[in-house]
Amino acid sequence: MKPMTKSPLQIARAEYLPKIPTSLNGDVVLTKGADTQSVADQAEIKKLFPQTYGMPLLRFERGVKKSYPVKNVGVILSGGQAPGGHNVISGLFDGLQKLNPENKLYGFLGGPSGLVEHKYIELTKQIVAEYRNTGGFDIIGSGRTKLEEEWQFDKGAEICKKLNINAIVIIGGDDSNTNACVLAEYYLQKNTGIQVIGCPKTIDGDLKNEMIETSFGFDTACKVYAELIGNIQRDASSAKKYWHFIRLMGRSASHITLECALQSQPNICIISEEVEAKNMTLNNIVEDIVKVIVNRANFGLNFGTILIPEGLIEFIPAMKKLIAELNDLLANNEDFNSLLTDDVKRQYVKAMLTAESCQFFRDLPKGIASQLTLDRDPHGNVQVSLIETEKLLIEMVAKRLAQLKAQGEYKGKFATINHFFGYEGRCAIPSNFDANYCYSLGYTAALLISEGKTGYMSSISNLTAPAEEWIAGGVPITMMMNIERRNGVMKPVIQKALVKLDGEPFLFFSKHRNDWADENSNYIYPGPIQYFGPSAVCDQPTRTLLLEKGF
Amino acid sequence: MKPMTKSPLQIARAEYLPKIPTSLNGDVVLTKGADTQSVADQAEIKKLFPQTYGMPLLRFERGVKKSYPVKNVGVILSGGQAPGGHNVISGLFDGLQKLNPENKLYGFLGGPSGLVEHKYIELTKQIVAEYRNTGGFDIIGSGRTKLEEEWQFDKGAEICKKLNINAIVIIGGDDSNTNACVLAEYYLQKNTGIQVIGCPKTIDGDLKNEMIETSFGFDTACKVYAELIGNIQRDASSAKKYWHFIRLMGRSASHITLECALQSQPNICIISEEVEAKNMTLNNIVEDIVKVIVNRANFGLNFGTILIPEGLIEFIPAMKKLIAELNDLLANNEDFNSLLTDDVKRQYVKAMLTAESCQFFRDLPKGIASQLTLDRDPHGNVQVSLIETEKLLIEMVAKRLAQLKAQGEYKGKFATINHFFGYEGRCAIPSNFDANYCYSLGYTAALLISEGKTGYMSSISNLTAPAEEWIAGGVPITMMMNIERRNGVMKPVIQKALVKLDGEPFLFFSKHRNDWADENSNYIYPGPIQYFGPSAVCDQPTRTLLLEKGF
Repeated sequence: MKPMTKSPLQIARAEYLPKIPTSLNGDVVLTKGADTQSVADQAEIKKLFPQTYGMPLLRFERGVKKSYPVKNVGVILSGGQAPGGHNVISGLFDGLQKLNPENKLYGFLGGPSGLVEHKYIELTKQIVAEYRNTGGFDIIGSGRTKLEEEWQFDKGAEICKKLNINAIVIIGGDDSNTNACVLAEYYLQKNTGIQVIGCPKTIDGDLKNEMIETSFGFDTACKVYAELIGNIQRDASSAKKYWHFIRLMGRSASHITLECALQSQPNICIISEEVEAKNMTLNNIVEDIVKVIVNRANFGLNFGTILIPEGLIEFIPAMKKLIAELNDLLANNEDFNSLLTDDVKRQYVKAMLTAESCQFFRDLPKGIASQLTLDRDPHGNVQVSLIETEKLLIEMVAKRLAQLKAQGEYKGKFATINHFFGYEGRCAIPSNFDANYCYSLGYTAALLISEGKTGYMSSISNLTAPAEEWIAGGVPITMMMNIERRNGVMKPVIQKALVKLDGEPFLFFSKHRNDWADENSNYIYPGPIQYFGPSAVCDQPTRTLLLEKGF
Repeated sequence: MKPMTKSPLQIARAEYLPKIPTSLNGDVVLTKGADTQSVADQAEIKKLFPQTYGMPLLRFERGVKKSYPVKNVGVILSGGQAPGGHNVISGLFDGLQKLNPENKLYGFLGGPSGLVEHKYIELTKQIVAEYRNTGGFDIIGSGRTKLEEEWQFDKGAEICKKLNINAIVIIGGDDSNTNACVLAEYYLQKNTGIQVIGCPKTIDGDLKNEMIETSFGFDTACKVYAELIGNIQRDASSAKKYWHFIRLMGRSASHITLECALQSQPNICIISEEVEAKNMTLNNIVEDIVKVIVNRANFGLNFGTILIPEGLIEFIPAMKKLIAELNDLLANNEDFNSLLTDDVKRQYVKAMLTAESCQFFRDLPKGIASQLTLDRDPHGNVQVSLIETEKLLIEMVAKRLAQLKAQGEYKGKFATINHFFGYEGRCAIPSNFDANYCYSLGYTAALLISEGKTGYMSSISNLTAPAEEWIAGGVPITMMMNIERRNGVMKPVIQKALVKLDGEPFLFFSKHRNDWADENSNYIYPGPIQYFGPSAVCDQPTRTLLLEKGF
């Protein structure tokens, strides 16, 4: 391996020793809690997971010395990057080494496909050392192959047998952990002797529930975005001439956007879940924005910040309907594809849409309407993730403000800058919180494996306390499941957590947003993540977590 | 004043005591160096600045106690934001207080127009306290009004007389400091008794010369952008599926882009000054990029990073020519404006261009060609700064790769993400370097004023040494001047510093760039600015400065 050139911070961070719960320091005993039930659809889930359903909650506490059997483990990084993945692996490595020095750790390369295609490396002390406390998933790479088919499971069992691997750790989001549970059940049913443990990863923050307080990476990613938003807000209030429209990654859920709003207090922040609950139209959203802009302009303030969640577009009922119609209409439509000019294509589409969707389509800015009709994926589907919602809103807001200006109801200037933040945060150097949390998750996964467990998610709770007081254990994955329709089929899945409108983070936001919007604003400038300073600066969890836990 | 809600880092940074050169601790004596000459056009500059030409270099050293006359001072923030502006003001405030407790500091509001329009506040201890070590220019706001006309100078003198102001400090870039010098000369000639001192500000890094080692804000802004580039590189090498095209602010000069490349070692980095020196065409640039992409694809690496300076487009000779022709052609052209469709407008333009420009125009992607012809400013001029060069390059590279693929010479996949970073860094919390440098600049400005100096720029040098060893003094602004054509008129101006192709920063880059481009890459991940950790992490100046000083 070619040695990397390293920045001073990389060098300093390599020396950081992640904190783990005091209960994991030294010898440990496993205690069992009550048996569990799935959050819904108990009978169906139980039927689908006869071997792994109903298992008890597990907790590790201080205990007496004990010897553990040798375990060879394979680890997989699944899906999008999240800060801290390398620390899950280093915690897992160190845990395995400590529990039995003969243990080995393999890394499957390029995500779940590495298991199926038998691509792997052994993770040695030297390799792991290069990646401690770093961002990224580059130690073994990640991938989006879904482990769903029995032939994939069998191929996986084949390589495990060959390498004498006793357990697989899957580091992933809700879908990957659902698949981890299916795999655990299958391997139990087939008596392969291969255990499967999951770890809760995703910057989107949508893998959380009664038992899992937060997914890893959410803390660091939000702090990076909030740093940038704070910097932009300071720029806005210095230059006093731009409205900054800032779209944030996070897929369907608005957790990232809400957390960034709590950290930075922008003038406006849209939460998709609220848009859906209130059945808001695109025009409603535009009107809400315009109201704030006009009010601030009346005080001579022609600047501000607006946060927009990536998934917004899918939560607007009329847009959802239009996209569904377009997908039905345009997929594999040779007539349409043979039309020569963009204008003719747009006319064709208008003629075929329902009256309601046609009206909505007509009202869209031309650029966005083109994007919807022309930029389709290989199957003819609209590419929702490519729609630059921030530009859509800018165009519509500008149009509405021009009308108000003509009517003498708006006298301000409206100049805008647009931003999209996502890739800037997924591979940041993990915050102390994520560095400690991830290392503890990995260490706990080693314990669960050594105790012979399968179908569990590694769990660290009490996360608003200092790391020493965190609680380590395991949660049966079946406990988090229900039955949902996915791509037209009813399936057992881990419930995806959207922003709860009656949850404390949203309630705090909705209580204060008018104060943030008005002429006084109340920007906070979080600044960059700090690793070495006072604990109040370096070790705070997210505002979301603090509010959820009653702080 | 409404108290701000503050982040933990804001609270902690408020306590930071900036370091100043040891020579400024305690009592100080002013020593004079040799008389100076302008860098060029000595006779003309001397004629234009009879009072302020040829003054000696100044240096402050440890001295004996001395009493200074009372001075009331007005301070102005001019032009774009740069991290550390608030620290110049707090250093100035503290210096004035220390030199004579009766001194007062006023802030002119909203930039130079505050002086002309008599808008100001007195900067009290309480106000300054709220802004110590923070980013932004919001303490008094900034603006882009140019102080160039005698009636403006007279209006300024009027308010200075009224408030009994003896000196004005102008914190700005090369143009603002040029104007500061004109103002100093004018006030001397008119015997107003008003001194004028400049401070070197700009994130762009293009205000530097023999005497001024760097402008403030460059350090912090580059570190913010390099943090983001590093994070993106880690994402690229983890996901292994995107080429990230990253455009960086910096106006004409490529200093920011070069510094970011030195900090992060991307696969490709374009330097405008090299493009111009080699008389490169857009196609040359595209071919250079394509070569690296094809080579990496041959090793199965379909990802990477490309840094692009904001000013690139203006350094491509053919583009410069096209833009000039379009401006001549379209400004106030009613015939053109009356044409109905975009297609007809493009046809009209093609018919009117020179053959050479027409060919170049034809080869441009349609979106960019439209932007050039359709999105013009109120005077009919092409809006160069709005041209998304990163998207232009993506389109052209994609087209070329498709050709190569058809010829069987390229077998990779080409998926891209584009970014533009600028507003994210201009108001960041200043790094320790900028916090110390700016505070020292402000403190030194107070000394220069108390010593009765005018037409000087506050200067801190020896910046690669620890702050204690920095050297404080003053440089006559006339010394940095030459005569240049600006908007068709010959004018005395401070030379703008572009990237020197024979300078150490560029030489280091050009020596190593092939290693960074190839299949091994060699990304560095700088991570976020740190304020509290080891000195090697927290107190390093830019790589540009270190290389320029022989480190």
